[in-house]
Amino acid sequence: MNAEELHAYLVAEFPQAFGEDRPHRVVRVDGAGVGLTLSASEEHLRPGDTVSGPSMMGLADIAAYAVILAAIGPVPLAVTTSFSINFLRKPPAGLLVADARLMKLGKRLAVCEVGLRAPHEGGNPFAVTGEEELCAHAVTTYSIPS
Amino acid sequence: MNAEELHAYLVAEFPQAFGEDRPHRVVRVDGAGVGLTLSASEEHLRPGDTVSGPSMMGLADIAAYAVILAAIGPVPLAVTTSFSINFLRKPPAGLLVADARLMKLGKRLAVCEVGLRAPHEGGNPFAVTGEEELCAHAVTTYSIPS
Amino acid sequence: MNAEELHAYLVAEFPQAFGEDRPHRVVRVDGAGVGLTLSASEEHLRPGDTVSGPSMMGLADIAAYAVILAAIGPVPLAVTTSFSINFLRKPPAGLLVADARLMKLGKRLAVCEVGLRAPHEGGNPFAVTGEEELCAHAVTTYSIPS
Amino acid sequence: MNAEELHAYLVAEFPQAFGEDRPHRVVRVDGAGVGLTLSASEEHLRPGDTVSGPSMMGLADIAAYAVILAAIGPVPLAVTTSFSINFLRKPPAGLLVADARLMKLGKRLAVCEVGLRAPHEGGNPFAVTGEEELCAHAVTTYSIPS
Repeated sequence: MNAEELHAYLVAEFPQAFGEDRPHRVVRVDGAGVGLTLSASEEHLRPGDTVSGPSMMGLADIAAYAVILAAIGPVPLAVTTSFSINFLRKPPAGLLVADARLMKLGKRLAVCEVGLRAPHEGGNPFAVTGEEELCAHAVTTYSIPS
Repeated sequence: MNAEELHAYLVAEFPQAFGEDRPHRVVRVDGAGVGLTLSASEEHLRPGDTVSGPSMMGLADIAAYAVILAAIGPVPLAVTTSFSINFLRKPPAGLLVADARLMKLGKRLAVCEVGLRAPHEGGNPFAVTGEEELCAHAVTTYSIPS
Repeated sequence: MNAEELHAYLVAEFPQAFGEDRPHRVVRVDGAGVGLTLSASEEHLRPGDTVSGPSMMGLADIAAYAVILAAIGPVPLAVTTSFSINFLRKPPAGLLVADARLMKLGKRLAVCEVGLRAPHEGGNPFAVTGEEELCAHAVTTYSIPS
Repeated sequence: MNAEELHAYLVAEFPQAFGEDRPHRVVRVDGAGVGLTLSASEEHLRPGDTVSGPSMMGLADIAAYAVILAAIGPVPLAVTTSFSINFLRKPPAGLLVADARLMKLGKRLAVCEVGLRAPHEGGNPFAVTGEEELCAHAVTTYSIPS
């Protein structure tokens, strides 16, 4: 699946998260993995105008799922078995980018790495690695049904 | 803080999560820790009527925060530094209970353990440990400002 | 397997770790899980006479493996897929106890929780929970071959 | 510190791990981080001639410590607060390379990422990223004394 196909698939499967007026968007699918953005608004913020932890976790979780979809196509029964995140820097309100890549794609288990970053104003959310430092780093494990 | 005080504090601080018509509730504060419930509805569900991963992560995150509040009082600047969860069994739609306890409360760092379980129909969400098996198990780390 | 059978099996399988003059020992197998001890000597210590991190990780890893063995018998191909530990308090030189229990035993995946504690002088390493506070807490995941 | 200085420091501090006839070696210190090797022999192997989990954890732990040393100089009181590893592929006996980099270096907390890989025969252990796939991926957190 390319970025448009993946976005369309996610609009259909997760209408709460993707689609018109919804905050998530697929911006990149290539050999390095998948890029997603969260346009953080009121509901995603904590006092101090920083993006809430659960919003960051939700973005990382869906980015990891998207990179598996991009690699092996729709596997609606794939389930997250573990999720681990380190929060490194507080992201400001605005656009948050998740870059997900597969560290392992086995028959039964997939392991994904996700970096979250806030692009500089005017920066390019489509770039795999910006000059921005990471806001958070997550590792997730999926069980793939046989 | 007891359960009512803690609930009132969380209604004021997280009106999206706690309060009338909101899904989270403090049900227990005692020497063993803190119990919270999530009444999972449409917005928290995934196909198959199971509670979504991010909803479970959000519940665990807030339960860990609540047990720190209960122990040391309001520390609005405490920040989650890491969050790690294993998903063990799919919870059905309905009530999900989070039991949080402190494994370490240091000067700079607090480490919390959170078990999530779905009480049997008619079961007691106020019990610390029900006969239910765990749906998920999380460990979170907080940095406490000096 | 009971404690003696499990110990004998581990002496045969891991002669570097279990057996005469070796530091690990099975001290408990019951419905709550498995208890192992490490008698920490020179090779396990760091400056300050505290047990080294890798020694604690090795003890937790083998305790998690032991609780799977105790539950389903010898599965020599079971492999650790992930291991996560929080260090909570520095243990003194001497005896370190690992209490391991299964949080999930599925067909393909087992998830174990391990608590490490240093029993008080004269304390009982055979007790499941001592009055001691945890030195470390680990969660490990195993893939079970089909 | 450069690679030789760092190696010399570790020989003095961890004589069990570094030095003549010892299996660990610093092979790289640069802007990208630190590279360490483990020359796995009998004591590090499991049946099937694969490197044991605890040996891989020990290598990752020491590589994370080394990258902090390289960045801020000797901080003998820095302590690991958490360690998390995913095992991705079984490494063969022989040379194992750990590439460690800092994801965050704060005043109180450092977060490191470590990739473990087995270089192809004749491959270059000094390269930051080989063509090899990762055998394991670890994230560790250190508390830095104030």
